[in-house]
Amino acid sequence: MSNTPQTGVTLALARFVVESRREAIPAPVIHEAKRALLNWAGCALGGCRDETVDTALAALAEFSGPAQATLLGRGERMDILSVAAINALSSNILDFDDTHLRTVIHPTVPVAAALLALAERSRATGAQFLHAFILGVEVECRVGNAVSPEHYNAGWHVTSTCGVFGAAAACGKLLGLDARQMAWALGIAANVASGLTGAHGSMTKSWNMANAARNGLLAALMAQKGYTSTEHGLEGERGFTRVLAQRRDLDELVRGLGDTWELSQNTYKPYPCGIVAHPVIDGCLALRDEPGVRPDSIERIELHVHPLVRMLMGNPTPRTGLQAKLSVQHCAAAAFIHGQVGVREFTDVCVSDPAVLALRARVTLVEDAAMPKESAGITLRLAGGVVLERRIAQATGSLEKPLSDAALEKKFCALAQWGWPGCDTRRFIELVWSLDRQADAGAFARAAAPPPDQAA
Amino acid sequence: MSNTPQTGVTLALARFVVESRREAIPAPVIHEAKRALLNWAGCALGGCRDETVDTALAALAEFSGPAQATLLGRGERMDILSVAAINALSSNILDFDDTHLRTVIHPTVPVAAALLALAERSRATGAQFLHAFILGVEVECRVGNAVSPEHYNAGWHVTSTCGVFGAAAACGKLLGLDARQMAWALGIAANVASGLTGAHGSMTKSWNMANAARNGLLAALMAQKGYTSTEHGLEGERGFTRVLAQRRDLDELVRGLGDTWELSQNTYKPYPCGIVAHPVIDGCLALRDEPGVRPDSIERIELHVHPLVRMLMGNPTPRTGLQAKLSVQHCAAAAFIHGQVGVREFTDVCVSDPAVLALRARVTLVEDAAMPKESAGITLRLAGGVVLERRIAQATGSLEKPLSDAALEKKFCALAQWGWPGCDTRRFIELVWSLDRQADAGAFARAAAPPPDQAA
Repeated sequence: MSNTPQTGVTLALARFVVESRREAIPAPVIHEAKRALLNWAGCALGGCRDETVDTALAALAEFSGPAQATLLGRGERMDILSVAAINALSSNILDFDDTHLRTVIHPTVPVAAALLALAERSRATGAQFLHAFILGVEVECRVGNAVSPEHYNAGWHVTSTCGVFGAAAACGKLLGLDARQMAWALGIAANVASGLTGAHGSMTKSWNMANAARNGLLAALMAQKGYTSTEHGLEGERGFTRVLAQRRDLDELVRGLGDTWELSQNTYKPYPCGIVAHPVIDGCLALRDEPGVRPDSIERIELHVHPLVRMLMGNPTPRTGLQAKLSVQHCAAAAFIHGQVGVREFTDVCVSDPAVLALRARVTLVEDAAMPKESAGITLRLAGGVVLERRIAQATGSLEKPLSDAALEKKFCALAQWGWPGCDTRRFIELVWSLDRQADAGAFARAAAPPPDQAA
Repeated sequence: MSNTPQTGVTLALARFVVESRREAIPAPVIHEAKRALLNWAGCALGGCRDETVDTALAALAEFSGPAQATLLGRGERMDILSVAAINALSSNILDFDDTHLRTVIHPTVPVAAALLALAERSRATGAQFLHAFILGVEVECRVGNAVSPEHYNAGWHVTSTCGVFGAAAACGKLLGLDARQMAWALGIAANVASGLTGAHGSMTKSWNMANAARNGLLAALMAQKGYTSTEHGLEGERGFTRVLAQRRDLDELVRGLGDTWELSQNTYKPYPCGIVAHPVIDGCLALRDEPGVRPDSIERIELHVHPLVRMLMGNPTPRTGLQAKLSVQHCAAAAFIHGQVGVREFTDVCVSDPAVLALRARVTLVEDAAMPKESAGITLRLAGGVVLERRIAQATGSLEKPLSDAALEKKFCALAQWGWPGCDTRRFIELVWSLDRQADAGAFARAAAPPPDQAA
């Protein structure tokens, strides 16, 4: 494909998606898709009762069409466009979702939210669902690769701007679009791609995900009905990569298609906070298990970190859970106090807990330009002069040290417990690992929510 | 307001909209609002049966919520978000809508489509509706002024990218948002602003309008429920004017607020085609009335035009109605053959009519760099050596030579005849001119559509 003229890359990408055969997807990629979906469902269950979701539903519910698909964790049923939006919102709100590190796209959120809603209506098989999902992530991340890092640096919220293409491609595959229709779907997507990073810190940040999922699904549905668009939505003179990025590498869209899979580059967070704090948390949790380490025996926690950590997460006095997600001092203190750093450690209650406050005040940040960004050193000074040290080269959840399947299962269970304690987690996890053998992909949605008659 | 710090312009604009009192709007501005709405309704009736609208409905209808508002010209009722989208689509598809010349925004489309749907649900009075409409257009065009012409030149479809702010502001006014909520609505709008000019010539062009209308309405509804956003959506470092424009003049957002009204700069097309051909059409229609001028007596039509006209509309052999909208040769030939240049003159049938074809072949474009863009000269060479000439300084519909109220009424009637011949045009026109005295703005929508039981 590397000889494809760059003037036709949208159509080339569309053709690849349309012509892709399930049998050609390597088994490890299919397994990674299941891991991504398990992680995503956990995030959706964990976030489904957030105030943000309640508020969006308060505005949207009145306008919903027929009950076609399921809100994860909650059980209400709405039309598939609304469900795509709300499930995307739920699954992003905790900042716990997956990351394609090269682009900082959270790939699964918009693609899975759109596709699962459609799969419920279309009665797709699990295998069809997985196949379309993998292709959607491929398109989404390749669009991101083509414009990164300039696009994100300019202020675009890359998961939503690129996610809408991924959602359109995945849904278009499930709908059986032909190549021209698929190019139209991508053309429509180019015209609805939006989302800025300027609203981060407010509810609007995650609304960008909702829009990307809904609009990608709708783009595919419109193209199926013959709604025309440009066939050059990505490369055209007034197309996405020209207007929304100062620099572009169109070859990234098509080079190695079918040979490499972006999903293989996916990573999963073990902690729901800024990723640069993750090696610190790993180190603190490890030191906590050393003999003699108790919160009241700690005189000082020294964090030896790359200067970026202070810039991104150097807040010594967070006042809310949201602020604490960007406070490495809070992360360290919470790790020693609670022995875990999960959703509960980023609630307002935990942030203002006197024990956490006291320990947080004893955290010192030591900038070290020689420290790699992905590493950290922790020096723990205990009462009586004892000094313990730990150095973390790569954090858990990095590509080099990926979260194991068992760790992803544990993460899922903790998130389900947080958002929908009634979840039969064992049954759901088994369903995900066997998704390629499920006759109805909709079972995924139904197992991740109470039945409609028990919906809130 | 000119001393407002530029860091707070979103909030300043929000406050202006929230605090605006109906009594402070000058009477000519209110009258211009009625003219804009009459023109808009005509465009919606004319376009409501277009294949584009049918195709969008084929994709969307399945997902509509309750029957809350009316599709103009058609009569089906859908939820207000869907109605906002489809009415925006209908009213733009003929390229016959109004134009704010400085920004080339078509101001009424997204604002009126969103606001009318909401007004139907909210039972707003005609006066409230007009007031909110005027404010929406004000916000929309000021956002455009702040980023023009760089924003459009970069490839952004300015009516949709700025229209979403106008729709949000207008709907937010009708909903009675406070200033912070209004700023949030504008912040949400900044995050869903989208639309490129690269899909022009396809159905997707007008879909951008649909999105702007729906998303602006939804932004206001979400802000009302407390969905938070940035309060710096326009000026923030990662806000709309920073990310979507290479240059910005934030003062344009607030300078003279309440003293000047952008709606006063609105213009209306007498002919549904590219605006640079309008002086040519004026001249041809005038010459047609001269004694001895008949299609078969014309040996040659020379059009003396600014070079831009060939660049934008120099197609001598259009094959479809859409192409003919960008062919000044077709416009001239159709004017002489039919004595009018309306929607019918841009159908595929008219474009391939042998009489039109024969005369079109006798049109010559003569570029004249000294000719102002807004002017044209026509030299008509008749059999027997007779030569007639006409020079048009300003076309009908320009700011200098605005369409009269009577001409707007005539345009409305012709468009209604085209899209919904059953319309009681006299009653509708009377309703528009008395809109500020109507107890229920929804009457506007109901009078512009057959009753639901007669819907298609």
